[in-house]
Amino acid sequence: MFLFYSDNVDGQTISIAGDEHQHCAKVLRKKIGDQIKITDGQGQIFTAEITAIQKQTTICHIVDKISSKPIVPKLSIAISPTKNLSRIEWFVEKAVEIGISAIYFVHTQRTEKKSVNLERIHKICISAMKQSLQVHLPKIQSYKSVNELIENVGSDYEQKFIAYCDGPTDLLKDILKSKINTILLIGPEGDFTENEIKEATASSFTPVSLGDSRLRTETAGLVGLMMMKYS
Amino acid sequence: MFLFYSDNVDGQTISIAGDEHQHCAKVLRKKIGDQIKITDGQGQIFTAEITAIQKQTTICHIVDKISSKPIVPKLSIAISPTKNLSRIEWFVEKAVEIGISAIYFVHTQRTEKKSVNLERIHKICISAMKQSLQVHLPKIQSYKSVNELIENVGSDYEQKFIAYCDGPTDLLKDILKSKINTILLIGPEGDFTENEIKEATASSFTPVSLGDSRLRTETAGLVGLMMMKYS
Repeated sequence: MFLFYSDNVDGQTISIAGDEHQHCAKVLRKKIGDQIKITDGQGQIFTAEITAIQKQTTICHIVDKISSKPIVPKLSIAISPTKNLSRIEWFVEKAVEIGISAIYFVHTQRTEKKSVNLERIHKICISAMKQSLQVHLPKIQSYKSVNELIENVGSDYEQKFIAYCDGPTDLLKDILKSKINTILLIGPEGDFTENEIKEATASSFTPVSLGDSRLRTETAGLVGLMMMKYS
Repeated sequence: MFLFYSDNVDGQTISIAGDEHQHCAKVLRKKIGDQIKITDGQGQIFTAEITAIQKQTTICHIVDKISSKPIVPKLSIAISPTKNLSRIEWFVEKAVEIGISAIYFVHTQRTEKKSVNLERIHKICISAMKQSLQVHLPKIQSYKSVNELIENVGSDYEQKFIAYCDGPTDLLKDILKSKINTILLIGPEGDFTENEIKEATASSFTPVSLGDSRLRTETAGLVGLMMMKYS
């Protein structure tokens, strides 16, 4: 099955634009009358018939719709962008393949990379979602500090963890309760400052270890996600 | 702690060559008389004093030695090289960070990439091992076929699994026995042929699923490794 992506659903009409339109009309040479599968990244798969192919847009009429359940529990990672952005982009691709509810980029005090191209991240999410035949796009947000993250999403999760080196002894997978909305906060290269750790623990983030070996930021994010998903 | 790597240990003398020598003598400007930490990638960490710095080699005298236990159980992945080699190189880096006993590259019938640069892979292993402060390098081998893999390493593992799409229903983490030497065989883009699956199951490889979402080869390898390690 090949899945297209469009979040532009209006009644019975779906418009496919940008890369998705190019791929549908130019690469796969779909024609008016052809039926294609489209997901909105919100858990719905539409069977739709192409009614018009314009220069920038493919217009489809919805023939059928399948709605999949929302993913519960919510499993999310808050992570510092890495100096080498390709590493964090790699993390995003893998996290979406495995299945993640939200990715929050947190600009901690020791984060060297000051900005993340969220549009580029969104494209990586779409391609990873399609590639792995999933129909849920993760929520992507960027926050200026650990405090801003806590204030904005802290209350969305019943279970909160913060992972850092040289401190926590409890392994995430051992103290993790399953079937609860959970967020894991992963620090930058150079780790969190003491102050950030205090802020997080004061907001009921539990310090955890991800094991003995010293993991890169993006590897820690993925190991944490897998522990939450498979423990 | 900064770790150098050398497998050239002769009695009380260790010679450091290549990139490691460059990094030690040129980048970090270590001098005769300085003490450094060196691992042989076989579980040993040496404290050694630099006795000579030559053009191509740094010569050290062993002052102290710490031996760490071998990693048990053996957890290994046999995987097909990916068309885009950077994906499999990424897998190697992450697998070493997390901890893996052996990586076997298997050239399956549907493997498009016909060769892997094992020297380059070895360098990635060394840098990931050092970065994650580990002292064990995984065994790296390349095999021409699933059959060749089975004949050469099949008997080294008490627990053998083969993961592929559209078939197995048992999730690896659910049927996995812990504390046993285990190997997981991961197929190429386009998956194994029926014949390869028959060969493997006939040699007591148990078919397993890695979950609902369709994972890329390198992601499947990492998810499989994490399930073996953390389940």
